[in-house]
Amino acid sequence: MIQFQCDYNEGAHPTILQRLTETNMEQTVGYSEDPYCEQARELIRKACQNDNIDVHFLVGGTQTNTTVIAHTLRPYQGVISAVSGHINVHETGAIEATGHKVLAIASSDGKLTASQVEGAVMAHRNEEGPEHMVQPGMVYLSFPTEVGTVYTRSELEAISTVCRKYKLPLFVDGARLGYGLCSPQSDITLPQLTELADVFYIGGTKVGALFGEAVVITNEALKRDFRYSIKRHGGMLAKGRLLGIQFATLFTDNLYLKISQHAIDEAMRIKAVLQESGISFLIDSPTNQQFPIFSKAQLETLGMKYNFSYWQQMDDEHAAVRICTSWGTKSENVDSLIEDIRRMAK
Amino acid sequence: MIQFQCDYNEGAHPTILQRLTETNMEQTVGYSEDPYCEQARELIRKACQNDNIDVHFLVGGTQTNTTVIAHTLRPYQGVISAVSGHINVHETGAIEATGHKVLAIASSDGKLTASQVEGAVMAHRNEEGPEHMVQPGMVYLSFPTEVGTVYTRSELEAISTVCRKYKLPLFVDGARLGYGLCSPQSDITLPQLTELADVFYIGGTKVGALFGEAVVITNEALKRDFRYSIKRHGGMLAKGRLLGIQFATLFTDNLYLKISQHAIDEAMRIKAVLQESGISFLIDSPTNQQFPIFSKAQLETLGMKYNFSYWQQMDDEHAAVRICTSWGTKSENVDSLIEDIRRMAK
Amino acid sequence: MIQFQCDYNEGAHPTILQRLTETNMEQTVGYSEDPYCEQARELIRKACQNDNIDVHFLVGGTQTNTTVIAHTLRPYQGVISAVSGHINVHETGAIEATGHKVLAIASSDGKLTASQVEGAVMAHRNEEGPEHMVQPGMVYLSFPTEVGTVYTRSELEAISTVCRKYKLPLFVDGARLGYGLCSPQSDITLPQLTELADVFYIGGTKVGALFGEAVVITNEALKRDFRYSIKRHGGMLAKGRLLGIQFATLFTDNLYLKISQHAIDEAMRIKAVLQESGISFLIDSPTNQQFPIFSKAQLETLGMKYNFSYWQQMDDEHAAVRICTSWGTKSENVDSLIEDIRRMAK
Amino acid sequence: MIQFQCDYNEGAHPTILQRLTETNMEQTVGYSEDPYCEQARELIRKACQNDNIDVHFLVGGTQTNTTVIAHTLRPYQGVISAVSGHINVHETGAIEATGHKVLAIASSDGKLTASQVEGAVMAHRNEEGPEHMVQPGMVYLSFPTEVGTVYTRSELEAISTVCRKYKLPLFVDGARLGYGLCSPQSDITLPQLTELADVFYIGGTKVGALFGEAVVITNEALKRDFRYSIKRHGGMLAKGRLLGIQFATLFTDNLYLKISQHAIDEAMRIKAVLQESGISFLIDSPTNQQFPIFSKAQLETLGMKYNFSYWQQMDDEHAAVRICTSWGTKSENVDSLIEDIRRMAK
Repeated sequence: MIQFQCDYNEGAHPTILQRLTETNMEQTVGYSEDPYCEQARELIRKACQNDNIDVHFLVGGTQTNTTVIAHTLRPYQGVISAVSGHINVHETGAIEATGHKVLAIASSDGKLTASQVEGAVMAHRNEEGPEHMVQPGMVYLSFPTEVGTVYTRSELEAISTVCRKYKLPLFVDGARLGYGLCSPQSDITLPQLTELADVFYIGGTKVGALFGEAVVITNEALKRDFRYSIKRHGGMLAKGRLLGIQFATLFTDNLYLKISQHAIDEAMRIKAVLQESGISFLIDSPTNQQFPIFSKAQLETLGMKYNFSYWQQMDDEHAAVRICTSWGTKSENVDSLIEDIRRMAK
Repeated sequence: MIQFQCDYNEGAHPTILQRLTETNMEQTVGYSEDPYCEQARELIRKACQNDNIDVHFLVGGTQTNTTVIAHTLRPYQGVISAVSGHINVHETGAIEATGHKVLAIASSDGKLTASQVEGAVMAHRNEEGPEHMVQPGMVYLSFPTEVGTVYTRSELEAISTVCRKYKLPLFVDGARLGYGLCSPQSDITLPQLTELADVFYIGGTKVGALFGEAVVITNEALKRDFRYSIKRHGGMLAKGRLLGIQFATLFTDNLYLKISQHAIDEAMRIKAVLQESGISFLIDSPTNQQFPIFSKAQLETLGMKYNFSYWQQMDDEHAAVRICTSWGTKSENVDSLIEDIRRMAK
Repeated sequence: MIQFQCDYNEGAHPTILQRLTETNMEQTVGYSEDPYCEQARELIRKACQNDNIDVHFLVGGTQTNTTVIAHTLRPYQGVISAVSGHINVHETGAIEATGHKVLAIASSDGKLTASQVEGAVMAHRNEEGPEHMVQPGMVYLSFPTEVGTVYTRSELEAISTVCRKYKLPLFVDGARLGYGLCSPQSDITLPQLTELADVFYIGGTKVGALFGEAVVITNEALKRDFRYSIKRHGGMLAKGRLLGIQFATLFTDNLYLKISQHAIDEAMRIKAVLQESGISFLIDSPTNQQFPIFSKAQLETLGMKYNFSYWQQMDDEHAAVRICTSWGTKSENVDSLIEDIRRMAK
Repeated sequence: MIQFQCDYNEGAHPTILQRLTETNMEQTVGYSEDPYCEQARELIRKACQNDNIDVHFLVGGTQTNTTVIAHTLRPYQGVISAVSGHINVHETGAIEATGHKVLAIASSDGKLTASQVEGAVMAHRNEEGPEHMVQPGMVYLSFPTEVGTVYTRSELEAISTVCRKYKLPLFVDGARLGYGLCSPQSDITLPQLTELADVFYIGGTKVGALFGEAVVITNEALKRDFRYSIKRHGGMLAKGRLLGIQFATLFTDNLYLKISQHAIDEAMRIKAVLQESGISFLIDSPTNQQFPIFSKAQLETLGMKYNFSYWQQMDDEHAAVRICTSWGTKSENVDSLIEDIRRMAK
């Protein structure tokens, strides 16, 4: 079976494994205080064009979201998120486990708008007894979103402006950041994101690493004692250099964006053939996740050779699935899928 | 500098890296539901001589302790631990972060005794208003302990008996399990441990893996929904197979115990020369962590070539340090250290 | 100003103050282990026609909701609630503070339906990876609801049946229980509620007491160690007898229902005159909370003499307000309000 | 039986009940925003000789401790307390329930010293990896302590100085504040305490009120959003005026200190006769709690007429008990006890 199920079906970019092997028996101190982590931090500072950011390395996305959010909020505050946000849906209540409510806002495309954020803050402030309700304390958004959509630069600027107006730190979940930055619909760069967000992370798990997320903190107030929060949430990797080596590799020779571009290219080839074939989509995604709506018969045909993620039942006869490409997707597998879709469409 | 600072200075046993490289571009499903994890589970069941255990893979020790303890306790219960227990000292309050008190019990050698456990339970029950105090809900102990000591089989049996009498699940932190099992003072086997504990883990991070801890659950009541708890605490690795491959490798051809034995052999060589040289110890450890007490002058001499962990100031002129060996310790480095200790002692 | 703002504008039923005064200098043990609490428990058991219930006394509603929910759920579980449920809106995240997500379900009338509950459970179970989401662990509903509506007996039976089918404890928030039981639309009795719920409470704060909620636990599994949970959440009143004396008074000579009936009678008089006057309602409430929609001009007129709670803006010219009666509402104040509404309507 | 078991055996000072009765059917807004609470705040500001303090009313001690501590600490911080501190022993883990560790410090007399506090902070800062341990974030002490001892003004000044040096808010648990201020060994006044503490509370439950604790916040940084924290912890009393009326009464005509003085006078009479009779004490307490050590025979004799709290077994034949007086202790009961002790001693 060929897997298009998710963007973590393979291991890591081969260069990463090679670097891990080369450095394997070197001795370094633990907990990300080694030279490889320092090197990775420097490379990320360069890529972000900002010398004044703190960079921390964590292992996975849920852990990172939990750590950043619990570190940022006061106890009685909640985090504003699209209702489809990963923290609201797919983290088994990890945010609530830290004592905070996710303040979920309706969204049909996985995105928040600046006016929604402002509306939520104003609604809270206009309450007669606001202290009876959770106070909005920060904004969480995913770039790209869980359904593959991307914010434009101006949309992010508008949200960032509202956040600064109301002193709400803006946190960007970049579990798939590379795929967002390389999307044909995206007009934002890493340095620009660094300016707009108070804290964000550069996803490694889904973009070429074995695992790992690089948290970038730009907001001074959030920098203090972040390592305590990492440890408290079980995210301080003993052999922290594994993260340093991986991110140093990804940020050498522009590897991170190169392999992200590959995933986007392959996804766009699939998207094009689906469109040609008259297949409709649950949502128009410009990134590595595509959400075509297939009939039962189509799913049966394709399902003999390919694995997709079941996403949503549309009606008795149709369901939306998720097709993912990634840094590791083989072009011949995409060729094969394209051919099979074409054949099916005839 | 040669590092004897801790047991996570190197990467992983080379066979593990080789296996990760060989399998790198294979496609598997995520979240430890892949065939490699299943294989590792089978191998661990065999090593434990018990087909009825649940085996889960987590990334690190603090995460594992937190997940197991929060999964096991009722909200108003606490976990009994030696005052020197890792959960009580070195996890930045990760247990308290889940709402539970660590019920710390005095210990001079890092170990709990059965009578201490029974005493704590009885003291609680004999309170006039026990509901005003945290109820003891489980017992945590480390094997080997944080100061390198090991429980004998009969000590563990006695604790296990008390735990079952009072229905307190017994949780064994095996971050360094291999080094405990291979200790010359240890008379317990993995299958015996499996019988005595309700839940324990087999440490990978410190024993040959890049990272990873294998949780073994024997108590039926604790098995239910454990995967929810893993996810809630951010411990569900997306590319779970990385854990499966590592533990499958460690539990093939007895590799886990073989490399543990190496660490013990090297530690015993160091211990012997220290003893010959008239160096005293903070504690008599039969495992891979040794705690010699050096004078300032000795520390300066050795400190030019070797890194140890500073452990405890003894008096103005003396301090105890920790010297760690591991699966990855090179014998020539130990030779060198031995020679230097001898030279210094003359 | 005459207050119709809420149902806790006055102190307590005079008999309660008289009993507190009579017993004031008696000496009793603390923490609700005194004879008055025992008497109150017996009276409540009689009123519920069930000798096998546990009865506990807490101080306020948020505290009670938090204590019951945190006591009932496993860590990774959440509580199903109508989106308008008090726990989801007006408790400053007190439930999330205990680590649990409120699983909010859409509702236009403040009520849940049995099929919504079943749907939520089934949706969860049918997930591919249910452990990535919060597991529904119990059901919370308010009787009457936050918008004054009541469940019929058959509606509650249907919900209770679904709950038992899926082993979800059913928790009924009875902060205004008396007003629900006395509603003309209600066909359920206290003994019937006792049979259908796993745990519920009889609100005192809003129904004649200075403060206090009596928690009734029918489900055996939830009885164990509940006093620990009360204490852990800061709800164990030192002078517990204050609660015992109040509830013993309320459950003597049927006082609780008599004074509830008074509130309903007064509310129905107001409702009738509003209807006669052509005023429309946000929702058709058969209990002590009424939600008429007034024009700006009407609000200005009535606002000179009466305080209501602002509830919801309907359009530029109209807003819904809440008018509350209670056990303590004076009939002459209602007479006055009725007259003023009539005058205004002319 | 005559109760000397605790200081909450009776109801409230009769004037309080009288005021509650007089105001009972008045209508006020809820949640401590009524005129009575405002009046009480003003009276407390006057008594503290400080116009710039925030005053909040909560219901009980555990709730107050939890709310203040959770409001003050960052997530990874803990609270320094004597090992015998109420928060460490008798609150069923309520502090840990909010995610924070109690950093317990040894104490033989229930008191902390400035050098212990400084030592704890320095020990933490001198750790190689301090982020692996809970960071001391505030200091909690009880005045008087749980064993009846009091801090002198200079002791408190020294602690306060250390706290300010290291930016640790100082929180004084004043559940029995009146009994501390009136102790013959105490040389501190309420205005002085207000200057030294960042936040403290004036206990009502044990000093004349039915219930209630008045939290005084002097530290600007802690004032923000405190009402959110009260609500989140279930401590926002609906009929908040009950607290306002009680504290307004206690702070009118110096009632609070007058009735505290009564308790001290009665306790000193008991202490004197015990000393005369050659009874030894567990600890030398200058407040309303006395801890004499009785033989079995003595306990049997006195136990026929009086209830004390069992405190600690001393040897096979002797046990320490707690004898409490309070605002409500009747002098004739003390007369009787004194006579019986004298008779027993002959």
